[in-house]
Amino acid sequence: MSDNVYAVSKVVGTSSKSIEDAIENAISTAGKTVKNMDWFEVVETRGFIDEGKVRYYQVSLEIGFRYEK
Amino acid sequence: MSDNVYAVSKVVGTSSKSIEDAIENAISTAGKTVKNMDWFEVVETRGFIDEGKVRYYQVSLEIGFRYEK
Amino acid sequence: MSDNVYAVSKVVGTSSKSIEDAIENAISTAGKTVKNMDWFEVVETRGFIDEGKVRYYQVSLEIGFRYEK
Amino acid sequence: MSDNVYAVSKVVGTSSKSIEDAIENAISTAGKTVKNMDWFEVVETRGFIDEGKVRYYQVSLEIGFRYEK
Amino acid sequence: MSDNVYAVSKVVGTSSKSIEDAIENAISTAGKTVKNMDWFEVVETRGFIDEGKVRYYQVSLEIGFRYEK
Amino acid sequence: MSDNVYAVSKVVGTSSKSIEDAIENAISTAGKTVKNMDWFEVVETRGFIDEGKVRYYQVSLEIGFRYEK
Amino acid sequence: MSDNVYAVSKVVGTSSKSIEDAIENAISTAGKTVKNMDWFEVVETRGFIDEGKVRYYQVSLEIGFRYEK
Amino acid sequence: MSDNVYAVSKVVGTSSKSIEDAIENAISTAGKTVKNMDWFEVVETRGFIDEGKVRYYQVSLEIGFRYEK
Amino acid sequence: MSDNVYAVSKVVGTSSKSIEDAIENAISTAGKTVKNMDWFEVVETRGFIDEGKVRYYQVSLEIGFRYEK
Amino acid sequence: MSDNVYAVSKVVGTSSKSIEDAIENAISTAGKTVKNMDWFEVVETRGFIDEGKVRYYQVSLEIGFRYEK
Amino acid sequence: MSDNVYAVSKVVGTSSKSIEDAIENAISTAGKTVKNMDWFEVVETRGFIDEGKVRYYQVSLEIGFRYEK
Amino acid sequence: MSDNVYAVSKVVGTSSKSIEDAIENAISTAGKTVKNMDWFEVVETRGFIDEGKVRYYQVSLEIGFRYEK
Repeated sequence: MSDNVYAVSKVVGTSSKSIEDAIENAISTAGKTVKNMDWFEVVETRGFIDEGKVRYYQVSLEIGFRYEK
Repeated sequence: MSDNVYAVSKVVGTSSKSIEDAIENAISTAGKTVKNMDWFEVVETRGFIDEGKVRYYQVSLEIGFRYEK
Repeated sequence: MSDNVYAVSKVVGTSSKSIEDAIENAISTAGKTVKNMDWFEVVETRGFIDEGKVRYYQVSLEIGFRYEK
Repeated sequence: MSDNVYAVSKVVGTSSKSIEDAIENAISTAGKTVKNMDWFEVVETRGFIDEGKVRYYQVSLEIGFRYEK
Repeated sequence: MSDNVYAVSKVVGTSSKSIEDAIENAISTAGKTVKNMDWFEVVETRGFIDEGKVRYYQVSLEIGFRYEK
Repeated sequence: MSDNVYAVSKVVGTSSKSIEDAIENAISTAGKTVKNMDWFEVVETRGFIDEGKVRYYQVSLEIGFRYEK
Repeated sequence: MSDNVYAVSKVVGTSSKSIEDAIENAISTAGKTVKNMDWFEVVETRGFIDEGKVRYYQVSLEIGFRYEK
Repeated sequence: MSDNVYAVSKVVGTSSKSIEDAIENAISTAGKTVKNMDWFEVVETRGFIDEGKVRYYQVSLEIGFRYEK
Repeated sequence: MSDNVYAVSKVVGTSSKSIEDAIENAISTAGKTVKNMDWFEVVETRGFIDEGKVRYYQVSLEIGFRYEK
Repeated sequence: MSDNVYAVSKVVGTSSKSIEDAIENAISTAGKTVKNMDWFEVVETRGFIDEGKVRYYQVSLEIGFRYEK
Repeated sequence: MSDNVYAVSKVVGTSSKSIEDAIENAISTAGKTVKNMDWFEVVETRGFIDEGKVRYYQVSLEIGFRYEK
Repeated sequence: MSDNVYAVSKVVGTSSKSIEDAIENAISTAGKTVKNMDWFEVVETRGFIDEGKVRYYQVSLEIGFRYEK
């Protein structure tokens, strides 16, 4: 983080595999429309259950990205 | 909610009628620029007072919508 | 509230009509298995969106009920 | 809101009818002793249950009012 | 999530392996006494340390399940 | 706390004597229907006032207990 | 609590003896200027230390009292 | 802070100049009706924007003052 | 604030000079892509340290702006 | 509190007797390694249960102490 | 946890691999200067992004350790 | 922030001049005993009042510093 201005977007990623995989999915999907992503913060970890097992993890992130100069 | 990635936008709707009406106004205005809205969460309920009566309810929502694949 | 001991259960009610109706649905369903309900507190108000309109309100309550003596 | 100084009071209104009615009751009662009320924020929504139905909604508000100049 | 009423239970799962494994343990144990589990939310992640290493992860979940109609 | 799974129940105890006594009342009443209680956390301390004195302390606890294996 | 409107005041009581005594001091002092006090909630517990011992407990309360009809 | 009882009032000050100036405005206005102010805590910092610049800072304070003995 | 609908964006401004300057930088950069900004709320104040001095203040704002009619 | 700089340490005291006794134990143990302790704030009150009774109270404090000049 | 007094330190661990690995790194580094570590609680999960992928997870822990008797 | 492990200390700085000056005082005093300070976060802004004016600002910071390798 330097002397730039950042915008922060909230994105929710899902994965049937792991919390880390849900985070990566959120970031790679967000990266299709947003450039210069710099950091994230996990703000919520949820999931869906099917037949007594986790079917999806759902992880909400705030993602910070630099405004282009 | 399925295996998609969602973005979350914060929107504030107002109504002189009711909290539910302020929520509907926020969602229908947001729907003019955003597609695939799926869920919302109320994060703040405020209002303005005029001559000892509620003039407007102001309800802040986080609205989740699916990224287009 | 008097000198009793209370248990607190968390219940989520839904309604397509209003926030108050979702609260009533939560309480009347909980009342089928729990007796002596005394008070509630709203802890979260969410909802689902369909074609740009609220389809369901989802209201999470904590419901307090007296332990039978 | 302009360049005034505001005081903020916490008031709890009740109503057997609706959340909005409890808010109006809180504001109109507060208005008997306080002038220049400008805005409110809902800080807690609770209620009492009688025979499996909501008997009262209890809504806690913070009400902002301008100091007289 | 549809137009049902849900109850929410708080459960703490432990695992020496991973956070995801602690979540799965909580859900599968809860599933022995509760049916129709639908979603969960992680509300706390703690753990115990033994000789400078994580011995157990302890993950607290709120688990939502549908009331039987 | 070991490698078990725990459930967490919310209970409110009251006492005209002290905060500690309200906690003990909550735990001993909960213990009539729940076994294997292990820990608690105080989540709210309230009370009722009568003629300018505390009439009851009301202490809300989350109580953790082991699932029977 | 019934169908009245309540105001809520924040008061800080101190005592060198106990938390309960600090609560009683706050309520009895507030009672000199406010009537119809009904309930309180503890919102903060602090204290001052002198020579390695607690010199004062400082307990912040929100006190609810009925508006006179 | 000594062995007194304190009341706590919430006040919002505004200033077009700085956060510190908004705090001073809140305190000096409150001081016209309240005596023995001892401390404050900033609970919210907001502001209004006009033509892309801050027009007012709005700082909400909780101000503690001693009850007269 | 009137009967409009508002969107809320989260922006982080930096400045080596002061908290107020970081706020102004966030708002003026956001103003290059967003119109009709109306209010802001400070949600986090952080900073970076270099050789024992503050090198940058980093202030996170939520900025509200009106949807164009 | 004057114009000094303070450090804040988090300490957890336990007692089988009372919440106040757990606070005193935390402070007197901390006082063996830290000087100039000035104030504390209770941040969590927990406990352990044995055979349906409180075995220990566990109270987490933040303790402020002055840096030596 | 028994009748000891505990100190709590806040530590941030990083890892390019997983959240669990960042936790282990925090604990093993803290263990070089602190003895008798007993438990931890995750208080924040953040990370840095490089070219659209997670480069580091950053996990903030509060670590509890027993005071030596 | 890179792949290091950080410790986080809580420090309270005071200044009669400004919030920024209180932050600088906290950091420069902490820097006498701690090396490699990297970032801070403001967690509380308070102050003391004397004769209706701010006498001191008191700003609580969490300061992050790298463990020496």
